[in-house]
Amino acid sequence: MGKVVGSVVSTQKDTSLVGRKLMIVRQVDSNGEPMSREEVAADTVGAGIGEYVLIVRGAGARHSFNENTSQQEVMDAAIVGIIDRFDK
Amino acid sequence: MGKVVGSVVSTQKDTSLVGRKLMIVRQVDSNGEPMSREEVAADTVGAGIGEYVLIVRGAGARHSFNENTSQQEVMDAAIVGIIDRFDK
Amino acid sequence: MGKVVGSVVSTQKDTSLVGRKLMIVRQVDSNGEPMSREEVAADTVGAGIGEYVLIVRGAGARHSFNENTSQQEVMDAAIVGIIDRFDK
Amino acid sequence: MGKVVGSVVSTQKDTSLVGRKLMIVRQVDSNGEPMSREEVAADTVGAGIGEYVLIVRGAGARHSFNENTSQQEVMDAAIVGIIDRFDK
Amino acid sequence: MGKVVGSVVSTQKDTSLVGRKLMIVRQVDSNGEPMSREEVAADTVGAGIGEYVLIVRGAGARHSFNENTSQQEVMDAAIVGIIDRFDK
Repeated sequence: MGKVVGSVVSTQKDTSLVGRKLMIVRQVDSNGEPMSREEVAADTVGAGIGEYVLIVRGAGARHSFNENTSQQEVMDAAIVGIIDRFDK
Repeated sequence: MGKVVGSVVSTQKDTSLVGRKLMIVRQVDSNGEPMSREEVAADTVGAGIGEYVLIVRGAGARHSFNENTSQQEVMDAAIVGIIDRFDK
Repeated sequence: MGKVVGSVVSTQKDTSLVGRKLMIVRQVDSNGEPMSREEVAADTVGAGIGEYVLIVRGAGARHSFNENTSQQEVMDAAIVGIIDRFDK
Repeated sequence: MGKVVGSVVSTQKDTSLVGRKLMIVRQVDSNGEPMSREEVAADTVGAGIGEYVLIVRGAGARHSFNENTSQQEVMDAAIVGIIDRFDK
Repeated sequence: MGKVVGSVVSTQKDTSLVGRKLMIVRQVDSNGEPMSREEVAADTVGAGIGEYVLIVRGAGARHSFNENTSQQEVMDAAIVGIIDRFDK
């Protein structure tokens, strides 16, 4: 779980990253409390700054882009869902 | 090892996540003591809130859903067992 | 490196886990000093409680079970060796 | 996200590493503040010392080299973009 | 980056580990300062105790052994280079 806090701008990058929205996501717990770790994840669901999101890493992240091109994809983290709420 | 503490509700998400029960799991040690990390895992065994569970990550998690569709799955964590007890 | 401290009992679980011995392993350093992290790993070498063991994670763990069935395996950690001693 | 702080010189190494620029990257948060972890990543975009970079790990890193040889590649981290700025 | 601090002796182990030199590696930063984590990695470059080394994990580690047998390999960490010096 994470919260989108910004984005990164990168001109010089791997060709598989061209056109991707690269968001800065801070890890949070289920109370929405921020933890110290931040990472960059490619957005696949239209997440905006301030939203809580579901992040996946590794091959799962590449599956979210396009299964046919996953052998060329380099990104290793993706936002795959916007979290409406935590039920506890 | 983890303990189910809740679930997340997400409307806007990757199509491979539609219909999945996405649980919030807090890591615990074998005394059931909670550790600080929480994560979201897809439930595959009918785990309920408060239960201790076995979690797997990465490709192993995708194998728990359906081996035929694992190239489209994006989820990277799954609950694959309910822990009845810790023997020490 | 880890030390086997117990096992978990799970009745309701993924079918690929049926018959597996699921051990609780606490990470240790090469002085045998325990660190805080514990995890569940499938035993493949007959390790007993109190023994120091070699653990692998991810696809390597699934290779230790049976290469023909690795697409159905969900487990992501395995005990693949018993450590007789640390040479330093 | 990381910041390039140096490089490593290695003569005796796996053949897949010959000719690679192996940079030392320190993790940073989106304020550019350094965190404690450092790692070695293969540069694929011409990143220089002092630049903020996007790092990927695992299979994604190997995809950045050359998809045809990824079965022989051993490296597990790559610099795949130079970060111009953080938008927050 | 790590520093080789010893080796482990294991008689009872997965057959893919027979004949492998299993070294204990302590993580270091680029000043050579030790960090708390230790792990076991298979040596593929003739690294000796006291040397600084490059470590890879996961599938990359298995590629360093032999690409033809990587489906049977269980090891998930390998020493793939000896670091002559850190340039900073």
